[in-house]
Amino acid sequence: MLEKIDLTKKMGKKEYKEVMEGLTAELSELQRECRNEKIPVMIVFEGLGAAGKGTLINQLIQSLDPRGFHVHAINGESEEEKLRPFLWRFWTKTPEKGRIAIFDRSWYRKVLIDRFEGITPEEELEKAYQEINNFEETLSEGGTAILKFFLYITKEEQKKRFERLRDSKETAWRVSEGDLKRNKHYKKYLQMNEEMLQKTDTDYAPWNIIEAMDREFATVKIITVVVECLKEALENKKRAAQKADKDAKLDENAQVNGKSAAILKSSMLSQVDLSLSYSKEEYKEKLDALQKKISLLHSALYKKRIPVVLAFEGWDAGGKGGAIKRLTSHMDPRGYMVNPTAAPNDIENAHHYLWRFWQTVPKAGHIAIYDRTWYGRVMVERIEGFCTTEEWQRAYKEINQFEENLYNAGAIVLKFWMHIDKEEQERRFKERQGNPAKQWKITDEDWRNREKWDLYEKAVDEMLIRTSTTYAPWIIVEGNDKYYARVKVLQEVVDALEKRLK
Amino acid sequence: MLEKIDLTKKMGKKEYKEVMEGLTAELSELQRECRNEKIPVMIVFEGLGAAGKGTLINQLIQSLDPRGFHVHAINGESEEEKLRPFLWRFWTKTPEKGRIAIFDRSWYRKVLIDRFEGITPEEELEKAYQEINNFEETLSEGGTAILKFFLYITKEEQKKRFERLRDSKETAWRVSEGDLKRNKHYKKYLQMNEEMLQKTDTDYAPWNIIEAMDREFATVKIITVVVECLKEALENKKRAAQKADKDAKLDENAQVNGKSAAILKSSMLSQVDLSLSYSKEEYKEKLDALQKKISLLHSALYKKRIPVVLAFEGWDAGGKGGAIKRLTSHMDPRGYMVNPTAAPNDIENAHHYLWRFWQTVPKAGHIAIYDRTWYGRVMVERIEGFCTTEEWQRAYKEINQFEENLYNAGAIVLKFWMHIDKEEQERRFKERQGNPAKQWKITDEDWRNREKWDLYEKAVDEMLIRTSTTYAPWIIVEGNDKYYARVKVLQEVVDALEKRLK
Repeated sequence: MLEKIDLTKKMGKKEYKEVMEGLTAELSELQRECRNEKIPVMIVFEGLGAAGKGTLINQLIQSLDPRGFHVHAINGESEEEKLRPFLWRFWTKTPEKGRIAIFDRSWYRKVLIDRFEGITPEEELEKAYQEINNFEETLSEGGTAILKFFLYITKEEQKKRFERLRDSKETAWRVSEGDLKRNKHYKKYLQMNEEMLQKTDTDYAPWNIIEAMDREFATVKIITVVVECLKEALENKKRAAQKADKDAKLDENAQVNGKSAAILKSSMLSQVDLSLSYSKEEYKEKLDALQKKISLLHSALYKKRIPVVLAFEGWDAGGKGGAIKRLTSHMDPRGYMVNPTAAPNDIENAHHYLWRFWQTVPKAGHIAIYDRTWYGRVMVERIEGFCTTEEWQRAYKEINQFEENLYNAGAIVLKFWMHIDKEEQERRFKERQGNPAKQWKITDEDWRNREKWDLYEKAVDEMLIRTSTTYAPWIIVEGNDKYYARVKVLQEVVDALEKRLK
Repeated sequence: MLEKIDLTKKMGKKEYKEVMEGLTAELSELQRECRNEKIPVMIVFEGLGAAGKGTLINQLIQSLDPRGFHVHAINGESEEEKLRPFLWRFWTKTPEKGRIAIFDRSWYRKVLIDRFEGITPEEELEKAYQEINNFEETLSEGGTAILKFFLYITKEEQKKRFERLRDSKETAWRVSEGDLKRNKHYKKYLQMNEEMLQKTDTDYAPWNIIEAMDREFATVKIITVVVECLKEALENKKRAAQKADKDAKLDENAQVNGKSAAILKSSMLSQVDLSLSYSKEEYKEKLDALQKKISLLHSALYKKRIPVVLAFEGWDAGGKGGAIKRLTSHMDPRGYMVNPTAAPNDIENAHHYLWRFWQTVPKAGHIAIYDRTWYGRVMVERIEGFCTTEEWQRAYKEINQFEENLYNAGAIVLKFWMHIDKEEQERRFKERQGNPAKQWKITDEDWRNREKWDLYEKAVDEMLIRTSTTYAPWIIVEGNDKYYARVKVLQEVVDALEKRLK
């Protein structure tokens, strides 16, 4: 993509001044419109050293309202970041709806500088490109406008700029050994950039090559592209809103037609043997042995820096809480965290639905337990209409990719569906209502959800089928007998940890 | 405080079981009540190595709803943390209203392990104790319940426990060289703990010594203390609410009486010479020279790792935005951040009012610019009644301590009051309304605030007097002439940076 670029382009000061006046006013206005329309925007600056990323970003933000953007300078990974999946630090920096996140270098470090330095092994490259493309696609489909700039200068110009920086005492420190090495091996490094551009130039997040020899020209080109892209994003948003209206109407019809089809489908869940049980003695004995094992395994996986994700879903009163309690009661609290998932708050709602789960992704060596999870997207959000049909249908792929990211970072990922039948649920609801210490656990909403049992059953069935993967399997837990269910959860965790630690 | 402690206390298994059943039910209930009453709770675990912090914290959290607490394990400072004021990582971890933050080691590391290791120089100890006490007092006065546990075992017991851990392959790594050293020099290290306990045992955050030889006894004592403290916190909350009602009534009376007194007071602001101005030529020349200087100074302070805080307050349309723009237009965006302060969002409202400003405290070598600041507490919040009289009166001290924390961490702290007179404000408001590109800048609220000019003048006057300190001076900027104001801001920043860099 780079060979066809004409690096001699320039712009005179006078022309620059005239063009900029109109452009910056337009940009200011567009930022306000995007804020009103709640469009999140990500602007990525990549390119060669001394191509002027800092100066050009500063030019760009001069026309922006500081209440609406944030500049992230992406250096090498910190200790904290090294302990988590590669995309963690970028997911957690994705902007709120209506805000702009500007990246001075970005997730592309991994396939550029870090590759050049040998920090990213060659065999991880394909996986990295894949993860990057999935990341951008997921965000783009979620409504984020993604703009990517690649700043391009010649080897000679780069050398000249480095020399000028090194000539002054105040700026000499800005030129690193790595910079000089990349200038020396300009061609080799450029080749890596070329490969990156080709592999990640997509329809949802295309690259813009910026001829960065002349600052005025580059500034105008960047701001022009930003202006065009924000206009397009506003158009897309409008179209998407119209489409959602239309889809909602289609959905209503489909639901009527879909009902008989649902009955024809046999449910995975109907095959579960809910008669499985343990006596109190069996339970105590097994529990005791498993808890002791877990305690030692927890210690061992901390030492080996293996991250673990345990996701719990299931019917209301299905025994998630009780199972989690037995699982953690002999663990070291410094090494695990229970993350309960309630309805999203303001801030969470202003981000992509996966954003809040990225926040709590475990560090290497730690266990993250989720009491309800990202699967809310394809269950409660689907059934209550909190997201569009298109959105929850897309979510299976997004969730699989999310879990694959965890797996690629070395994590053990297990997902438990705590299964009970409708009669057992009623028994437990009534028991809770009758017990003053447990009354707070049961609300009118629980009873309302119960009425939608059949809809949920269909959604769960589809979820289990579409998201059971080799890297993140679903484990259905026969839950009518609490003793049996708790032991099964612990046993599955022990088995998975032992298998990995061997 | 330690010498009187009887370390032979024990509890039988049977008694333990009986007592615990009642205690844990009570604790669960109290957690729910504290959540309903929106009381934030911080529980600190300090003490000797192998005293059982991990196990005891796990015992405690078994009775807690995981939706309501978070365990923070406090290790040595990370690179990111080292670049910020000592309390930054703790302020950012203070819990939301209604939630519990549990600290496995805490800010006391600085005066214990880090002191023992020589990481904290002896001459910094007094300052550290002072900052710690101020931190706890500020939070406590803001309504946080603070519980501190010190786990105590004998030298022999500690040695035995270390040996037991080292005997097993799975647990040997848990005993560090530092642990063994502290056991060897038990007496010396205990003396440091004793000093820490004495210096930080306060009425607002007292220490609880836990005899940790017997796990059952320690568990019961800890949970009992937590139960008692939460009960007390609920009582305090109730009393505070009653007091606030009473105070509000007193305030109404006071305001009537206070009016004449306000007129008698001569305002600091009335002495400001608003006729100061520059011609366009003078302005351009000075601005150009100063911007070039700032750019070089910015680079130099990055290299020397000096953090800078620039706080902007002033009348609406006082020229904050324009001054900030001229200040930053030649800076490297990787080294500065403009933090605009709007009305707090949900999450910010659920914390201490200083919490959100701690989030954006600059790293060493970076410049944080605040467009409106923590001074909202003693201006808009005071005048609009968003906080009680007691709260804004207390805020002067809290704000001074906050800025002192920044100063102690090496920061340059400058505060600008952008001053214009009432006539100039009217002129600017009208100009904005007449200009389509600026209309969005002016709202009905601005006109409403203008009506409260006299009240604000009084509040500003008091603020300037009470919070002008040697370590964080206020600079009043004569703002009727925009050129003069912008040059003055830049000049003051240049002067302060040059002074420090010399």
